[in-house]
Amino acid sequence: MRTEVCEMFGIEFPLLAFSHCRDVVAAVTNAGGMGVLGAVAYSPERLEEELRWIDRQVGGRPYGVDVLVPAKLDLKNGDKSGESGGGLAAMLAAVPEEHWNFLRDLFARYQVPLPDFEAARRSKAKGVGEQVTEKGATDLIEVALSHPIRLIASALGTPPPRMVEAAKSAGVPVAALVGTVEHARRQVAAGVDLIVAQGTEAGGHTGEISTMVLVPEVVDAVAPVPVLAAGGIATGRQMAAAMALGASGVWCGSVWLTTEEAETPPHVKEKMLAATSRDTIRSRSRTGKPARQLRSAWTDAWEGPDSPGPLGMPTQMVLAEGAMRQINKVAESGHPGARELANYFVGQCVGLMNTVRPARQVVYDMMQEFAEALERLNALSSE
Amino acid sequence: MRTEVCEMFGIEFPLLAFSHCRDVVAAVTNAGGMGVLGAVAYSPERLEEELRWIDRQVGGRPYGVDVLVPAKLDLKNGDKSGESGGGLAAMLAAVPEEHWNFLRDLFARYQVPLPDFEAARRSKAKGVGEQVTEKGATDLIEVALSHPIRLIASALGTPPPRMVEAAKSAGVPVAALVGTVEHARRQVAAGVDLIVAQGTEAGGHTGEISTMVLVPEVVDAVAPVPVLAAGGIATGRQMAAAMALGASGVWCGSVWLTTEEAETPPHVKEKMLAATSRDTIRSRSRTGKPARQLRSAWTDAWEGPDSPGPLGMPTQMVLAEGAMRQINKVAESGHPGARELANYFVGQCVGLMNTVRPARQVVYDMMQEFAEALERLNALSSE
Repeated sequence: MRTEVCEMFGIEFPLLAFSHCRDVVAAVTNAGGMGVLGAVAYSPERLEEELRWIDRQVGGRPYGVDVLVPAKLDLKNGDKSGESGGGLAAMLAAVPEEHWNFLRDLFARYQVPLPDFEAARRSKAKGVGEQVTEKGATDLIEVALSHPIRLIASALGTPPPRMVEAAKSAGVPVAALVGTVEHARRQVAAGVDLIVAQGTEAGGHTGEISTMVLVPEVVDAVAPVPVLAAGGIATGRQMAAAMALGASGVWCGSVWLTTEEAETPPHVKEKMLAATSRDTIRSRSRTGKPARQLRSAWTDAWEGPDSPGPLGMPTQMVLAEGAMRQINKVAESGHPGARELANYFVGQCVGLMNTVRPARQVVYDMMQEFAEALERLNALSSE
Repeated sequence: MRTEVCEMFGIEFPLLAFSHCRDVVAAVTNAGGMGVLGAVAYSPERLEEELRWIDRQVGGRPYGVDVLVPAKLDLKNGDKSGESGGGLAAMLAAVPEEHWNFLRDLFARYQVPLPDFEAARRSKAKGVGEQVTEKGATDLIEVALSHPIRLIASALGTPPPRMVEAAKSAGVPVAALVGTVEHARRQVAAGVDLIVAQGTEAGGHTGEISTMVLVPEVVDAVAPVPVLAAGGIATGRQMAAAMALGASGVWCGSVWLTTEEAETPPHVKEKMLAATSRDTIRSRSRTGKPARQLRSAWTDAWEGPDSPGPLGMPTQMVLAEGAMRQINKVAESGHPGARELANYFVGQCVGLMNTVRPARQVVYDMMQEFAEALERLNALSSE
């Protein structure tokens, strides 16, 4: 195919695959699309290791790295931890007693032993919250740029000028995810080379405008900057639809979560395979910002009448990640309460994700479905 | 074009236009699509008049009628008015004092004189709530079937067996709007000939699944029954996208509201032309069921912390219609408070509706945009 995005990266099929799993990234790149590794959960040391592995797998074919750089942290309750980079302990210290009580009650109700937050509180360890601070993101970007990456993406907010400058001087294009036209314009003004217009049906952090409406709006607003469509896309006919809307390609995240390679915990994968498109909810309960995820006992509790309300980012993220790590550990052995609580970020297209396939096969299926959709469209239109 | 829907109705362009305005219905039919008159606000006598007018305009070309038949009325507070067909007075009598007080305060805050609900309460008049009872809908269907209509559509719930039988024996296909796969299956089981899969971005009554996800799901679930895509669609490239998803055509409602012919009050039309895709909200404040509409002081108040919460359908509908009629009357003269309150049902594609065009021109523009989108898609894909 020949779109701006194919030319930008030298790929044949303009499908970008966002995944936290290096195997998915390499498989999609090797199948003719382009994998983008979500680095938010990694320390700089771990990221270095993952990228070395990918470099060996892809033999010079293009891949990218995604970091989470919030334009503004929602620090509440006097929490300065995110700014100061005081580590996990400082972030946990900022959690109000009311929230600890809520969590204690929730775990008791589902008969899951509470994780040892106290130990973490006393420790000097760095947590997942660390990487969403500007300092944390900058460290990750430095590691990423020391590898032959072809794209740096920013999943939240306008990338800091230092990130854009560093990428530009390394000759690496910068992409940014947006949920509104205004954000898209702001990103382009900040020097971003590629816009990912992400509809409300997407998994993870997402706005309120649907892909069907957002993509043509953003395409018109930022032309000639190329736009990838994201949100709800898991098949080749949806990819054809996105490109009919004016997109130069698509950005898919959810569809990889049920692939053979995915690191998704088996009990969560099972939930996803069984879920319909109605089984997701946009909730602040995992990161502090609205993010679409599987509806579960966890989201029901945080969105319910007895909830103290989620904290801001990154504090809620630290709290939820700690809780969810424990939930997943306990759920592995089949614990029913933990299985009810378990969830993960996923888009409404979870209703279309009903089989486990290798990531490579997902790419090939999308290629074929895309061709069939176009053929059908041409047949309908020919008089 | 040659889709199942083109063949079903003998039309050249599979664009169905839902409108309460007879001029739009006739214009779209005469331009090569098919108009569908929304009959919910009409008495049987008024509907008879409207259809006679349309018959004269379209010279035998196809058009349809849409009625609102809720599968189940949300009667609350002991309200039996909707079931008993006790008329407007009985419905108003079912409104709790708390809601009258809320409305009184709201109107006072925006300095709009309260409408004379008391007179309506004492009168024997029939109101808009009347047509959404099964009896009311049946009367409308009887009038509709005495005209050469080519489609009866049901906007809510499974059509009653009597409606399906009456339409079938008159040789008129029945369409139904759905927001989930389960509803689509139920409609097909009830004998419906054409499914309109309507995404959450649509104006009016709508579910939570986006068009991008819902359409392929429904297409697969009900094949070989043809599916129209609805929700967020206002341009030809969106129509091409919908058909890439597997739809046999599209159903558009919002886009006609800013046409030259539309009966939309001028101050509401202005709001729509200025609105972005972020300026809508899915709220129960106008009908008692979740319906997408312009965000305004009206929705802010009903969704706000001091709201008693909307009533069920049809009681909330009767209350809101009475209030909105007064708001629109007062707003006409430029009253700022009334203008803040005024709103109307519209989808997120309101962000794409920025010019006033004749309805005919909207059809022609969509034809051209569709052709261009397909051409672009073919050019991208040719190696």
